[in-house]
Amino acid sequence: MPDISSLSTGAARVAVVGSGAVGAYYGGMLARSGCDVTFLMRSDLRAASERGLVIHTGGERLQFPVKMAATPQEIGPVDLVLIGLKTTANSAMEELLPPLLGPETSLLTLQNGLGNEEYLASRWGADRVLGALCYVCLNRVAPAEIVHTERGSISLGEWRPRDGGQRAQFIARALMEAGVHAEVVPDLVLERWRKLVWNIPFNGLSIAAGGATVADVLNDSGLRAEALALMREVIAVAASIGLHIPESFADDQIQRSWRIGPYRTSSLVDWELGRAVEVEAIWGEPLRRANTVGVHCPRLELLYALLKKLAGAF
Amino acid sequence: MPDISSLSTGAARVAVVGSGAVGAYYGGMLARSGCDVTFLMRSDLRAASERGLVIHTGGERLQFPVKMAATPQEIGPVDLVLIGLKTTANSAMEELLPPLLGPETSLLTLQNGLGNEEYLASRWGADRVLGALCYVCLNRVAPAEIVHTERGSISLGEWRPRDGGQRAQFIARALMEAGVHAEVVPDLVLERWRKLVWNIPFNGLSIAAGGATVADVLNDSGLRAEALALMREVIAVAASIGLHIPESFADDQIQRSWRIGPYRTSSLVDWELGRAVEVEAIWGEPLRRANTVGVHCPRLELLYALLKKLAGAF
Repeated sequence: MPDISSLSTGAARVAVVGSGAVGAYYGGMLARSGCDVTFLMRSDLRAASERGLVIHTGGERLQFPVKMAATPQEIGPVDLVLIGLKTTANSAMEELLPPLLGPETSLLTLQNGLGNEEYLASRWGADRVLGALCYVCLNRVAPAEIVHTERGSISLGEWRPRDGGQRAQFIARALMEAGVHAEVVPDLVLERWRKLVWNIPFNGLSIAAGGATVADVLNDSGLRAEALALMREVIAVAASIGLHIPESFADDQIQRSWRIGPYRTSSLVDWELGRAVEVEAIWGEPLRRANTVGVHCPRLELLYALLKKLAGAF
Repeated sequence: MPDISSLSTGAARVAVVGSGAVGAYYGGMLARSGCDVTFLMRSDLRAASERGLVIHTGGERLQFPVKMAATPQEIGPVDLVLIGLKTTANSAMEELLPPLLGPETSLLTLQNGLGNEEYLASRWGADRVLGALCYVCLNRVAPAEIVHTERGSISLGEWRPRDGGQRAQFIARALMEAGVHAEVVPDLVLERWRKLVWNIPFNGLSIAAGGATVADVLNDSGLRAEALALMREVIAVAASIGLHIPESFADDQIQRSWRIGPYRTSSLVDWELGRAVEVEAIWGEPLRRANTVGVHCPRLELLYALLKKLAGAF
């Protein structure tokens, strides 16, 4: 079996599980650049087989045929699985992943929040697992049709230290060759917490404040202060488990958010469309970590309770 | 001018300012029992003049003519003003109260939250001011038509200590003779804070959780824990300004709330009907007191910021 170093030559095989906006975008960009990518699809299968995948990005409309399959059995073992499933659908992996696994198959989760790498490691072995933070604004506007509005960079890393991080480098290089800005991060867990410093307040308040954009939160002095206070709670939890994020990071994040404008967070979009909100991955799991180490997070606790109720029944 | 001791004989004159559910109910009960009560009315004037006031209470439908006026000038100076205005309409009192005031006129605010007695005292003198907590479930179902569903008791007291509390006793006696359970409380401010211990979490979470009844909050273990934690924050603020409310009061309030069932708090009803929510009186003012004395109330702070946004634009 070809190893992952041959990803960008098309010799290594990639499967995308969870071909929503994130999976379709990153998998699609790899496929378009010559990687051998097969998308596991259900609802989008027909549209993708009729006219391929459509990605609107950088003012262009990219349309190209892709390989797809309705079951993981049709795909069989691959070298790399890109996981774009919503975390609320993680249990589906019990059936979707095993047919894709050979002895050396790597698993790269592109999912939000905390706990996904742990889940993959506990079920299929820590050695297989990589994780990525996707700093991107994407929307699936129709079956197999994605609009990429902003950013797009991806930070990826090994879940556990592993001979020199070569694997992550190979994947990052393939992404870069596909036109996606990718970087390898030395401490994936720290990156996850840094991203949570933003997602916990902004995704949370966007729902709890009844449909607030990033600009709405920033323009309301009360909500802005609460966003900052929530950031400080998250930073304190991270600090207590040995992940140093400077206090100034919170202020920087607020400052940098002004230019995002009237953006609807992905959680808000999910909520407004009646889709599952990733409450456990983004708020529940960080709060449980805080409780484990005895760090007091009153705002996160209240926000989590509200979100569970507001976005509940999933 | 007859003094307030003659209230129940009908010799003393009462005006009701803010003839919504609360003003109409307590003023109506007094009027029906023989007190001389005039209601200042705008939108309900026509219905009340055509068929009087209607109060559904205890399985009965009470209907009786009442005195009413469209302007305070038509009423002129009275012995007692019952104030049932929403706190969000307090500024209207600048015009509504002066024509009703003689040198000895007493003002009894039936309003929610904190700051109303202070407002009245600062404008028209502390000696005039009494306050009441209304433990009652009322709904105005049509102009000048009120449904009284539960409880009804009123706890009233002087704003400042004043020769023996006779005035509060006279009013309480008139209310009792009108069929309303009334008691005089020795410490009105303490009573306000005790009521806030319930209103802050339950009224607040009912809105912030997207339309939750009391039973919904209690049945959700996360929200129930947050309600309790909010209660403890309020108790801590009260303690710091010298108002002792035992810690066990919070647990008692949660326990006692179970029997309230699927009740929609008055704030939730206001919010759902698009009416002004008393955000400042119930959450803003207590939080400002906390800030003044340096007591940390992270949950109240977040809840207030959310409510201001959710129920904003008033």
